[in-house]
Amino acid sequence: MDLVSCIRNVPDFPKKGIGFKDITTLVGNGPALQQSIRLLKQKYNDQKIDAVIGIESRGFIFAAVLAHEWGIGMIPVRKPGKLPYKKISETYELEYGTDTLEMHEDAVSAGQKVLIVDDLLATGGTAKATAHLVERLGAKVAGFGFVVELDFLRGRDNLSTYRVESLVHYDSE
Amino acid sequence: MDLVSCIRNVPDFPKKGIGFKDITTLVGNGPALQQSIRLLKQKYNDQKIDAVIGIESRGFIFAAVLAHEWGIGMIPVRKPGKLPYKKISETYELEYGTDTLEMHEDAVSAGQKVLIVDDLLATGGTAKATAHLVERLGAKVAGFGFVVELDFLRGRDNLSTYRVESLVHYDSE
Repeated sequence: MDLVSCIRNVPDFPKKGIGFKDITTLVGNGPALQQSIRLLKQKYNDQKIDAVIGIESRGFIFAAVLAHEWGIGMIPVRKPGKLPYKKISETYELEYGTDTLEMHEDAVSAGQKVLIVDDLLATGGTAKATAHLVERLGAKVAGFGFVVELDFLRGRDNLSTYRVESLVHYDSE
Repeated sequence: MDLVSCIRNVPDFPKKGIGFKDITTLVGNGPALQQSIRLLKQKYNDQKIDAVIGIESRGFIFAAVLAHEWGIGMIPVRKPGKLPYKKISETYELEYGTDTLEMHEDAVSAGQKVLIVDDLLATGGTAKATAHLVERLGAKVAGFGFVVELDFLRGRDNLSTYRVESLVHYDSE
């Protein structure tokens, strides 16, 4: 199954000139969802992963299934105010302004090895902030797993000290 | 494994007097996540389900794993402005004010049978609005699957025409 054909391109979302890669059509297709999970699993089957981090909120979808497949826990990284317990936060730069992500302070333990999962790698700001959260708690980032990578935004350069695996690549909008 | 012991009670979140049932500790525990999925699957294994709807955003976690286990698609129902393609929306009453949910208009087809999944059943407003979205597209609600049900809020009364299954029940805050 060709995963690219399962991703819908939505022009001008969320703003004019941006071609949004809509993965709801992939997730809504049973065989495509299974294939994307099979491929992400294969990429990291050589590692002993202790937990899978999912970045709010489409990242939850793939992170949860991967964690379940491996029989390990899934840990949400969320926008401010969503997590109920004690947490740490990381603020990062956007093109205009900043954004913040939070993680429960007891979500990972020192020495654990975690995989960070999101649906899409764009500029890598969110991904890098998530890695910092993990590392501040003393855990190790085994790598990143993305379904889609927008190569032309060069997010991979932002994550150059990490292993980055993506299933589908786009060279341009 | 006792699922209740895996759920953290966080007092006074999101506001004073509310005891928040934090399922991140359950999801972060590999065996507990697997058991909750096994139990939800068992509840609906007698039905032929065509798709699993996950309600933003903790619902995505359980809906995605269930869909993957059954080899069918997972469909997100989201807060306004998040879904990129053509959608329908449903507005429902809160204690103070209203809230709105959206679903892609091509996410389910007429005649399909879907399971609606969320982490928690409180008053049932969100769940009922989601059922209406499904029905407006001509699909049928096979039932609801929740991990936690707050019995004292009587959300089940709000969903009396549907099958409702929950794994963990709380009689009081």
